[in-house]
Amino acid sequence: MPQGQPENVPNDGLTTRQRRTRPLVVVHTGPGKGKSTAAFGLALRAWNQGWPIGVFQFVKSAKWKVGEEAALKALGEIGPPVTWHKMGDGWSWIRKSDDDHAANAREGWAQIKRDLTAETYRLLVLDEFTYPIKWGWIPVEDVIETLRNRPGSQHVVITGRDAHPDLVAFADLVTEMTKVRHPMDAGQKGQRGIEW
Amino acid sequence: MPQGQPENVPNDGLTTRQRRTRPLVVVHTGPGKGKSTAAFGLALRAWNQGWPIGVFQFVKSAKWKVGEEAALKALGEIGPPVTWHKMGDGWSWIRKSDDDHAANAREGWAQIKRDLTAETYRLLVLDEFTYPIKWGWIPVEDVIETLRNRPGSQHVVITGRDAHPDLVAFADLVTEMTKVRHPMDAGQKGQRGIEW
Repeated sequence: MPQGQPENVPNDGLTTRQRRTRPLVVVHTGPGKGKSTAAFGLALRAWNQGWPIGVFQFVKSAKWKVGEEAALKALGEIGPPVTWHKMGDGWSWIRKSDDDHAANAREGWAQIKRDLTAETYRLLVLDEFTYPIKWGWIPVEDVIETLRNRPGSQHVVITGRDAHPDLVAFADLVTEMTKVRHPMDAGQKGQRGIEW
Repeated sequence: MPQGQPENVPNDGLTTRQRRTRPLVVVHTGPGKGKSTAAFGLALRAWNQGWPIGVFQFVKSAKWKVGEEAALKALGEIGPPVTWHKMGDGWSWIRKSDDDHAANAREGWAQIKRDLTAETYRLLVLDEFTYPIKWGWIPVEDVIETLRNRPGSQHVVITGRDAHPDLVAFADLVTEMTKVRHPMDAGQKGQRGIEW
């Protein structure tokens, strides 16, 4: 990880400490594995800081990613709270047809906006949130303006392939995960403990 | 994540199930962030499967990555055991000068080999293990032969920049993390909850 002196010190009127603790918008994108797992790895650091964590999974199926959900919920029982919202089950705060994914995604985003305004969490993981933006269900301008104007100290991690270029341009930290080799190439399908 | 049919089904004499549950060697490399956090995110899935987890951190300083250590150790108290070995403190099983990093790294590798033979864990995270290989402290041929011949079902995740090409060629799953943008570019240094 980077240490030492930053190459450029901007003329932004902030002290080094203010700049250092400025909350981040982080994007994990690209076709490779590790986008979501890295977000949940970050959540372990947030948990250790005592930060309330909100996870919003814009996944189509609740079958996947059960491992991190169980583990982080267990941590939420013995530390700062971990709140889990999952679209695959139908969002917890609405009772619509599961087929209406676009409406579900918009409701999820509306809830995120409410939580950002209320400063409910200090780390928000918006897992696979790039897709409803890509599909035009949620305007990227609304996402960027909301994140730009969020109060307090709220870090936001967004995962998923094909992150919108405007979101990439806006984010503070962007990592692209590139596939070099995948077991599927050798005829091996996904397995428990690795894929979920 | 990939679903459906693999493109190529190899003529390896294995059934789909056998091939599916074949244990993996996973490498997270590249200059971007997320290599270690993605490994620890995978550990959450392993934990949820009830698998014993062994973490071997080939880090120079124990200052970093305290968040994931505290969180995974807490999980180890309420689920399958999580064992943590850290070079930054001096390896727990030897009492050498901390200056002797090469000898420390070799001792760490010797312990990993013992644990692989004993099948102590079902997931091993060898964090920043690419460096002692890169620096010639541990022969890559020894690493590959040991991994190739490991018994049972032991998944091994190796993280760090500049993974040796032979290791990349041998591994089942390789992801490269590429930096698109980092807060350091805008004069922002690392901060708690994000970098550690």
